[in-house]
Amino acid sequence: MPLRSGDEYLSSLRDDRRVYILGQRVEDVTAHPVLGVSARHSALEFELAQDPALTDLTTASLDTTGETVSRYYQLPRTPEDLLRRRELIDYGSQVGLSMPLFIKAIGSDCLNALHVVCAAVDDKCGTSYSARVADYRALAAGADLALAGAITDVKGDRSKRPSEQAHPDYYVHIAERRADGIVLAGAKTNITAAPYANEFIVLPTRAMGPGDDNYAVACAVPANAPGITVIARPDSAKNQFDFPLSSRHYHIEGTIIFDQVFVPWERVFLAGEWQFAGALANTFATWHRFTGLAYKGPGADLLLGMAQLIAEYNGVASASHIRAKIVGLIQYAESIRVFSRAAAREAEFHAGLACPNALLANMGKYYFASGYHDAVRAVQEIAGGAVVTAPSSRDYNHPDLHDHIDRLFGGAPGVSAEDRLRVLKLIMDMTASEYAGNWFLATLHGEGSLEAQRLSMYRQYDVQRCVALARQAAGIKDK
Amino acid sequence: MPLRSGDEYLSSLRDDRRVYILGQRVEDVTAHPVLGVSARHSALEFELAQDPALTDLTTASLDTTGETVSRYYQLPRTPEDLLRRRELIDYGSQVGLSMPLFIKAIGSDCLNALHVVCAAVDDKCGTSYSARVADYRALAAGADLALAGAITDVKGDRSKRPSEQAHPDYYVHIAERRADGIVLAGAKTNITAAPYANEFIVLPTRAMGPGDDNYAVACAVPANAPGITVIARPDSAKNQFDFPLSSRHYHIEGTIIFDQVFVPWERVFLAGEWQFAGALANTFATWHRFTGLAYKGPGADLLLGMAQLIAEYNGVASASHIRAKIVGLIQYAESIRVFSRAAAREAEFHAGLACPNALLANMGKYYFASGYHDAVRAVQEIAGGAVVTAPSSRDYNHPDLHDHIDRLFGGAPGVSAEDRLRVLKLIMDMTASEYAGNWFLATLHGEGSLEAQRLSMYRQYDVQRCVALARQAAGIKDK
Amino acid sequence: MPLRSGDEYLSSLRDDRRVYILGQRVEDVTAHPVLGVSARHSALEFELAQDPALTDLTTASLDTTGETVSRYYQLPRTPEDLLRRRELIDYGSQVGLSMPLFIKAIGSDCLNALHVVCAAVDDKCGTSYSARVADYRALAAGADLALAGAITDVKGDRSKRPSEQAHPDYYVHIAERRADGIVLAGAKTNITAAPYANEFIVLPTRAMGPGDDNYAVACAVPANAPGITVIARPDSAKNQFDFPLSSRHYHIEGTIIFDQVFVPWERVFLAGEWQFAGALANTFATWHRFTGLAYKGPGADLLLGMAQLIAEYNGVASASHIRAKIVGLIQYAESIRVFSRAAAREAEFHAGLACPNALLANMGKYYFASGYHDAVRAVQEIAGGAVVTAPSSRDYNHPDLHDHIDRLFGGAPGVSAEDRLRVLKLIMDMTASEYAGNWFLATLHGEGSLEAQRLSMYRQYDVQRCVALARQAAGIKDK
Amino acid sequence: MPLRSGDEYLSSLRDDRRVYILGQRVEDVTAHPVLGVSARHSALEFELAQDPALTDLTTASLDTTGETVSRYYQLPRTPEDLLRRRELIDYGSQVGLSMPLFIKAIGSDCLNALHVVCAAVDDKCGTSYSARVADYRALAAGADLALAGAITDVKGDRSKRPSEQAHPDYYVHIAERRADGIVLAGAKTNITAAPYANEFIVLPTRAMGPGDDNYAVACAVPANAPGITVIARPDSAKNQFDFPLSSRHYHIEGTIIFDQVFVPWERVFLAGEWQFAGALANTFATWHRFTGLAYKGPGADLLLGMAQLIAEYNGVASASHIRAKIVGLIQYAESIRVFSRAAAREAEFHAGLACPNALLANMGKYYFASGYHDAVRAVQEIAGGAVVTAPSSRDYNHPDLHDHIDRLFGGAPGVSAEDRLRVLKLIMDMTASEYAGNWFLATLHGEGSLEAQRLSMYRQYDVQRCVALARQAAGIKDK
Repeated sequence: MPLRSGDEYLSSLRDDRRVYILGQRVEDVTAHPVLGVSARHSALEFELAQDPALTDLTTASLDTTGETVSRYYQLPRTPEDLLRRRELIDYGSQVGLSMPLFIKAIGSDCLNALHVVCAAVDDKCGTSYSARVADYRALAAGADLALAGAITDVKGDRSKRPSEQAHPDYYVHIAERRADGIVLAGAKTNITAAPYANEFIVLPTRAMGPGDDNYAVACAVPANAPGITVIARPDSAKNQFDFPLSSRHYHIEGTIIFDQVFVPWERVFLAGEWQFAGALANTFATWHRFTGLAYKGPGADLLLGMAQLIAEYNGVASASHIRAKIVGLIQYAESIRVFSRAAAREAEFHAGLACPNALLANMGKYYFASGYHDAVRAVQEIAGGAVVTAPSSRDYNHPDLHDHIDRLFGGAPGVSAEDRLRVLKLIMDMTASEYAGNWFLATLHGEGSLEAQRLSMYRQYDVQRCVALARQAAGIKDK
Repeated sequence: MPLRSGDEYLSSLRDDRRVYILGQRVEDVTAHPVLGVSARHSALEFELAQDPALTDLTTASLDTTGETVSRYYQLPRTPEDLLRRRELIDYGSQVGLSMPLFIKAIGSDCLNALHVVCAAVDDKCGTSYSARVADYRALAAGADLALAGAITDVKGDRSKRPSEQAHPDYYVHIAERRADGIVLAGAKTNITAAPYANEFIVLPTRAMGPGDDNYAVACAVPANAPGITVIARPDSAKNQFDFPLSSRHYHIEGTIIFDQVFVPWERVFLAGEWQFAGALANTFATWHRFTGLAYKGPGADLLLGMAQLIAEYNGVASASHIRAKIVGLIQYAESIRVFSRAAAREAEFHAGLACPNALLANMGKYYFASGYHDAVRAVQEIAGGAVVTAPSSRDYNHPDLHDHIDRLFGGAPGVSAEDRLRVLKLIMDMTASEYAGNWFLATLHGEGSLEAQRLSMYRQYDVQRCVALARQAAGIKDK
Repeated sequence: MPLRSGDEYLSSLRDDRRVYILGQRVEDVTAHPVLGVSARHSALEFELAQDPALTDLTTASLDTTGETVSRYYQLPRTPEDLLRRRELIDYGSQVGLSMPLFIKAIGSDCLNALHVVCAAVDDKCGTSYSARVADYRALAAGADLALAGAITDVKGDRSKRPSEQAHPDYYVHIAERRADGIVLAGAKTNITAAPYANEFIVLPTRAMGPGDDNYAVACAVPANAPGITVIARPDSAKNQFDFPLSSRHYHIEGTIIFDQVFVPWERVFLAGEWQFAGALANTFATWHRFTGLAYKGPGADLLLGMAQLIAEYNGVASASHIRAKIVGLIQYAESIRVFSRAAAREAEFHAGLACPNALLANMGKYYFASGYHDAVRAVQEIAGGAVVTAPSSRDYNHPDLHDHIDRLFGGAPGVSAEDRLRVLKLIMDMTASEYAGNWFLATLHGEGSLEAQRLSMYRQYDVQRCVALARQAAGIKDK
Repeated sequence: MPLRSGDEYLSSLRDDRRVYILGQRVEDVTAHPVLGVSARHSALEFELAQDPALTDLTTASLDTTGETVSRYYQLPRTPEDLLRRRELIDYGSQVGLSMPLFIKAIGSDCLNALHVVCAAVDDKCGTSYSARVADYRALAAGADLALAGAITDVKGDRSKRPSEQAHPDYYVHIAERRADGIVLAGAKTNITAAPYANEFIVLPTRAMGPGDDNYAVACAVPANAPGITVIARPDSAKNQFDFPLSSRHYHIEGTIIFDQVFVPWERVFLAGEWQFAGALANTFATWHRFTGLAYKGPGADLLLGMAQLIAEYNGVASASHIRAKIVGLIQYAESIRVFSRAAAREAEFHAGLACPNALLANMGKYYFASGYHDAVRAVQEIAGGAVVTAPSSRDYNHPDLHDHIDRLFGGAPGVSAEDRLRVLKLIMDMTASEYAGNWFLATLHGEGSLEAQRLSMYRQYDVQRCVALARQAAGIKDK
């Protein structure tokens, strides 16, 4: 079966799924003024794969089946495979004007993590999850599915483990074990593309302890399975002149409520082995941080480009303090790519898979997440207050105002008011809108919190090697 | 005449002014769904002054007339007067839930700057601007006017002076001098409260040079003067649960187009003395930075409070990394007040006026403006992704979803989903919305750019005193 | 009795004290090539007080006795007293070319802390420590003593309380209680001026718990009391051209070993009341942070001055990136003074004493300590590598080399090689020498660690007031 | 000819060179208490190459001659060659306890830069410098020479070009052109290893303009050539316990005075082609920044190791704020290696040479140089004031004091006073000594100033590609 077209993907979403947004049930997500835009944005992932010129980039062979599939569903075996994967994600993010396409990336991050960790579970516990994961990968790749990764629980009291919570639904759990499968309850939240994915890959969000058995659950669930309700995050439709990005390219996160959802055993990849919940969460995090690093480069370049462009339009591009800020943005953009490629090249091998270097993926993610607000500030400092106060396209098109605005809002010689307004609106949309607000939170928390990354770095670096060097330098003898 | 009530102020805005927003002419700004909210927010300034318990704070004697007027229109004579002024601005910002009331503060910043600089102009040029300024202050104070400060020009090519621009309208200028007054052309932009002020105080926005004579103009103009059009920045109405701040408290900036606007001489405070344009811009900047420092304290406290509240709701308030961020927010909030009070206490005296210490006002403004994005990041790091992904009140109120949300979105024991949603929405509104975007830009640029402040600091500090100390320490003899 | 002269102070140090440095017993500290310099630096404090032109600054009335004493020994009653105290410390630091004179400041910080806390101890425990403290102040002031504050213990395992340590001597403690006094054992370390103070004021360094009774001890001990040994930190003598600061102005810290040292009851100010150990440590910390803020201003100005001077000498003072760094140094220097004065003006009153505002003293100390390395980096960035590679005065004075150096090491037109070498050596001494190393550590740890200051800020700020503001803004009802 | 031994290298330095230190002419640098240590440190480079186990790392084939030579003198042809070169430099830095061995690295950076730029000069100007450079490389490799790179001039007024200076000697220049060669005058300063290199490779330090012809000079000069005088930077001998690093491993920079030094044409690589001076300086800078990145990893690891070790000794290694600082040091250390390897892997090819990626070498250098002071601060914050106040080994060995110190200076259970003193002394030596001061300056300026790197980044990044992305996103049509 060849890869699906964008239209085929969109058609597949008309499946009686139960999605709400702003208190309204949505009959057809592809027709909704908000969700339809994000679904069509996601459809670009499928459209790219139809382009013969991009076949090398967008497809690859799944070595377990020999089929040509989306590169996302390939089993990466070499650093080169990881470099190609990052190139594909990066390219999609360029096509999305800095918004990643994401509709297969996160789901395959989940599958890759399951591949690695289920091998260990099977090894320790005599289970056969690995085979189920392999079968499911073949299925998803063959059907060219749009997958969302359902990881983050609603969590209740963050200082307590799942089984210690006041309410069992604060973490997704196995409400019932049957001969033919399990029944899920609880909810996952912050789930990118939940309203318009074909299936959800459910993974635990954290390490667990004794008593948390029923919370240690991983599985695959179709988006229209009985008992599933998705509440999309609130958003509203925008026009293109005033919101050049958020009118066309965005994702909608959703809260997925699992209300006694049945999952057959062949789709269950962890069911009680709480000792592996942490490993699964962490392995996913590494893969997903690598994805984050790959898509963030074009976003950083876009910030840099808009800053330079408005500086040129305002006639100040050669001022020393402007250049200093541009250099800061260069460092931001290029460092992201440096960490991204390094995490691929210094791959770790687990269960036959080339996995991104965990420490480097982590460090790179931390770098871009902790520096994003500063990068935005640099752009805003360069651009000036007109970013938020400039007239709208409706003002610009009004006969009473058009000529005034045309006369007044030009910049350096030869820069028209229209062009200058366009870049101001672009900066507004990217840095000072609800869309910008989503980016702030997604950048900070999208692949785990900064604190989670600090903990990971502490564990992943060989601190004692450095201590040995210090002991040697100090002349301290080993005991 | 006593101070006006809020209703009297609102009534005064129905004066046939010419205001547009989103391409629509607004007949009555007080009745408009967006502008009406900001006008009523501004009306709070008048309502405070009606409260007998606050009389000491809100009113003062204008010593040139002996009248009891709004404290904003007082001539500050002592550091204590400045401390009281900052207290009033701070209090208004608390009432506005961190949004300053502003409707007299900026205008009186202008009047105070004119008081100081016109004394110098009169002294050097034999003009009598000071008397006009004093008369106008008495008029504004007596009529208890709502004033906007119209300073920032549209500017065209920022690397060129006004007379070097491709178009004369890039800076407001005197298009014609008549026996009875002047005729203004050009536009001012980013003007806070322009759509709902009674009058505009026009000041130059930068230093000027020979040939810029006609751009060196300061004056007072009623908002409904013939030839004036205001284009309000775009914004939309919000509901209170999901947007607890931006549904109730905000200002709308406007671009004021001066299309051959006549201003009689008694309202003209500078007309061609380009050597003083820079001094006027800088003196206003000092006053306005002091205003910025005064209103920003409650905003910083609110950021801190919401961060601590969501940490408590999430059960993580005692985690070490959370506390470290809270301490950062404490430093942010308290440092603002420290600089604010220092700028008052170490007042400079010019033309009989106690003026804020220019260096300290500058440093304080720089501090809060350069640190704002970091403060926001700390709040967002603590709060998590639910800030932008949490269901809306419309979802919460929907019968299909209400119980699910109630069950799933609670936090630490005893924290209801409703309360937790409310604080998430508050954080969303304050840090991740269009309103937040406005705050980013207003904080960076509202009282001049960071670069402008760096230049000011370099000029205002006695660097050569330090060089002398270094020479002494190095044993270098004076030449 | 009038205040002592510098010579009288120096004479008083020939008292058979037991001081070691670099493994040598020192017979007469005033004659030692290293300790003599620091003793003479300290003697400047006494010389200042002999200058009739400075009497207003250096002396004050001790209101309990009516005597005119060193201003350090005054009981501050008003914010103005604190401002004058800071001015005296600041002035001394200028005289010391950025090195504070310190020889009465720290001791009186101890006395002020004892005044406040002993009032509370007496109140709760029925003791009469306050009277002893008052008597001792009168004695110290009357005899114009040089006092060191002996606070920091050697500490052993920092994660354990005193009574939990492997060795009782890790904290100074009461080894024996006698009818006429107590016997001390243990050691205090990092004690500024220990080798050349007349007496030590011993205070606890941390909060204590049950079982730590014998470690909760405060008292005054003469430097030559039997059983006391001081080990001075290592240092070596320098020449003035190459080390313009560290050849003349520094302090030597010492470790004070208490080997069964008897202290009569009238000199004992705490002896077992462990509940107050933390309050005493914290109250001292506030006073001492205020001292730190007062002396650091001239140091910051000196950094700024040397940076500007070498920039002028190198012909680059007007480069934009140089100016940006100078502005950073301006902010550093002036912010220190802003916090310093604010801590005085917003004094807190305890036991009749005007005490520095604890939060502000803390914030200011944190500010200067956390920013010091950055300030040094700015200076070094401006100055260039010649700071450490430039020829020494011995090279410069060698007949083979003098003319070469004179020809080669000049700078901008009119700048001689000698002057340029002098400022390079000054920067080397201040930022890149052992002396500089001492400053790094003293700045970070001299008035408590940054972490201690973070904890203090968290406790001293009214976080719940901010939470209430957030609750109000979010529309959350009080329970 | 095989590679030289350490002793052969040391013997070769007894060649009547003219070296001064602290105003004393040094007869035999290998026997001098200061210079001898640095010469023996450099000899380690030769000793490593004698170790058969390291042959693969330390040697390589010079493809132009087929000889096996020091890897430093290899012509790198592939990214893998660059990775091996960085590995060798890194390894040497480990052997030197974080101090690079350097005695061939910098010289070969010069040769590699000459290889690239002379090809361009020959191409444009018809010269035959490339052949001379190749011959010289064969000579240097064959004789296994110790080379220093002599780049930085004394510079005079930094705002002026060489020919605009008040004195011609502010930049090294051709004082005379003869049939058989050129005569050099002027001086180079900050030259690492100048007192104990066999030869100096002279390169221009900056871009030049018309009129600077005689300053555009590159050549190779033996260290004992007539007319050469080296003034070593001042330093003094140390003992190992108290200065575990600076007693054994350091380099001494020198100022090299060229007093009419004759250089035959076959050793002249640029002589008047001022248009290439900038390219030569920049190409060298890229190579040398790559060297800097390679040697800095072990230094960063050592900082991290000593911080962790003292934290363990003090019993605080598990405190959250300590871990946060350790994580910061992890990021510092690992990021350096990430940039280092990336600069090798993304090599640029010029004149047949695999050259480090200029942008990435630059970014990495900027990263480690701008972050070094912060890294030191983190170590010092963790370690506490005892770093500078702890007793010296002479105290520790004194019979009166030894037992006291042994009893008092232990740490966590099982940590002896001696071991704790050793790590405190290590931290003192690395962060708070003259040696530390040298590192601060060397790190900031050793491979060019931070400002130079900012300029390079601005030039090396494709800003206009980002602008095109912004234009596309904003919907701005190409003109």
